[in-house]
Amino acid sequence: MIQQHGGNAYSLKNILDFSANINPLGMPESVKEAIAASISEIEKYPDPDCTELRKKISVHEDISVDRIICGNGADDLIFRIVHALKPRKAFVCAPTFTEYTRALYEVGCKITEYHLSEQNCFDVTADILTFIDKCFDLCFICNPNNPTGRLITPEILGKLSKKCQESNVVLVCDECFLDFVTESEKHSLRNFMNGNSVILKAFTKLYAMPGIRLGYAVCGSTELAEKIRNSGQFWSVSSVAQKAGITALNENNYVHKTMEYIASERAFLSTELQGLGIKVYDSAANFLLFKSDKGLAEKLLAGGILIRDCSNFSGLSDGFCRIAVRTHSENKQLIEALRRCMNG
Amino acid sequence: MIQQHGGNAYSLKNILDFSANINPLGMPESVKEAIAASISEIEKYPDPDCTELRKKISVHEDISVDRIICGNGADDLIFRIVHALKPRKAFVCAPTFTEYTRALYEVGCKITEYHLSEQNCFDVTADILTFIDKCFDLCFICNPNNPTGRLITPEILGKLSKKCQESNVVLVCDECFLDFVTESEKHSLRNFMNGNSVILKAFTKLYAMPGIRLGYAVCGSTELAEKIRNSGQFWSVSSVAQKAGITALNENNYVHKTMEYIASERAFLSTELQGLGIKVYDSAANFLLFKSDKGLAEKLLAGGILIRDCSNFSGLSDGFCRIAVRTHSENKQLIEALRRCMNG
Repeated sequence: MIQQHGGNAYSLKNILDFSANINPLGMPESVKEAIAASISEIEKYPDPDCTELRKKISVHEDISVDRIICGNGADDLIFRIVHALKPRKAFVCAPTFTEYTRALYEVGCKITEYHLSEQNCFDVTADILTFIDKCFDLCFICNPNNPTGRLITPEILGKLSKKCQESNVVLVCDECFLDFVTESEKHSLRNFMNGNSVILKAFTKLYAMPGIRLGYAVCGSTELAEKIRNSGQFWSVSSVAQKAGITALNENNYVHKTMEYIASERAFLSTELQGLGIKVYDSAANFLLFKSDKGLAEKLLAGGILIRDCSNFSGLSDGFCRIAVRTHSENKQLIEALRRCMNG
Repeated sequence: MIQQHGGNAYSLKNILDFSANINPLGMPESVKEAIAASISEIEKYPDPDCTELRKKISVHEDISVDRIICGNGADDLIFRIVHALKPRKAFVCAPTFTEYTRALYEVGCKITEYHLSEQNCFDVTADILTFIDKCFDLCFICNPNNPTGRLITPEILGKLSKKCQESNVVLVCDECFLDFVTESEKHSLRNFMNGNSVILKAFTKLYAMPGIRLGYAVCGSTELAEKIRNSGQFWSVSSVAQKAGITALNENNYVHKTMEYIASERAFLSTELQGLGIKVYDSAANFLLFKSDKGLAEKLLAGGILIRDCSNFSGLSDGFCRIAVRTHSENKQLIEALRRCMNG
């Protein structure tokens, strides 16, 4: 059974889910309380402009409020960007998050895949710059990349941003996992913003609230933001999500604690996997890509553990799997289960 | 100030909102409890297939589960239908709910408007059948129509459905307000379903839960359902909405009580408006369209009451307004305010 996405464990019962990349610290208590307190407001339509939430994001991101758009999860924004811009030709990496191409195919867009090579640990290398030209309307980059966890270097990102601007290509940088990265601000497209830039961010993963959908985009210009805002339905973000988001943005300590926890547990998992003779790719994110024997995911599932079989990602093959960084005791459970699988 | 939609009262404080057509009985207690109980599940991704909710809708609608699609509000489904089918030419009534044309324009669709005439109380008449032909890919009908509250007769609806099938036009019938109608089942497209039919329904209005977005579509074939399901993002419906929807469908008494309450309060409002010399259109829904002097909405707003100025609907002009049927005491407040406005 290969999943279309991680986190789709609904047909399975009593499963330990390593396929979804959610903050192992769980949803902050303050967010739970904000959701409970928002129930009476469900009787009113949500604010279609997400006014209060966007103001809060504006302060948090230190960017003008008219360059921020909220969506029903970052995925909603991927589709709205594509529907708004209707690109005829787009540039995406492989492997990467599969929803970019799903959205692009929906508008009949021609896609050029930039193959990230296994030999280079799936890193984006400087040669990407030679491929970007005026023939493209849109370029999607995921930083750190999903499912590899690899960061693009600030140097290449800066040049890519400039090249996109010169070639009039809209560069959408998906930073949904960047808040899990140590010294994240060094790696953001924010350092190289121009009128052609869009940054995608999600509350889903960082604040462990995927059940209510919430994401946002920071746009390089108000014109671009306006275009994307006008695409898709009027009330896409629920009032519950708006309240949860407003509260989540107060959780600075939680974010800091998360970053430290992820770094330490990712190192633990990585060392243990290597100890089992598994090829692991260094990751900056809250998940790890590794390469092992075909059939490992099925074996683990038989023992009640779900991991993400990545063989259906364009650019990956049999044996590639992704695991989320979970709590220490859960991570130990996974390692023990892996040990049992590999010893037959 | 003319609103793009009703229910957008966020920039206003302490307002009595007659612009949003929400059940005046309020959200059922059981639904509030279900939402509160679902908070811990927000840490997991929602079921992208809405399996449990669709099963429940399947029983409720007595239709096969693979012909049901859930969405982030009925509006999400309007956009997904349009993105999935990419119609080149579509047929819509005027006046009607404005999101159909917004979605259609997003895919560059050419729109033919069927003008509902004021002389006929904005009713769909049999001549609609002469306009539908193979040149159209899609036809949107809203029954009862928003903002008029007028029903299409079962006879014309049946013939329209047949004509659409013969002409290979997908007929989308928006029945989001049909559950407020007395003997609603007599008026549903369900009586004339074929492979080209889609019915849209919302939890939003009937169960007074617009703050969490939830709607569904019943499709005439599994192929059509599959096409629409594959369009747009993977996780569009939050887990909170799924739990709320499952619980709401148990509320049969609430629905029955709603229907009776609406009928009685609508009659009260209608009589009172006519008593004030206002031209009111007979409505089957939980709202009323009336025609009065230009500027009435502004005058009411100055007194703290928001109604929907309908002059920006295609097919309507200055002076047309829509009001929701609210609780008896609120309806009396509106009538008193109207009386004051009209006496200068």
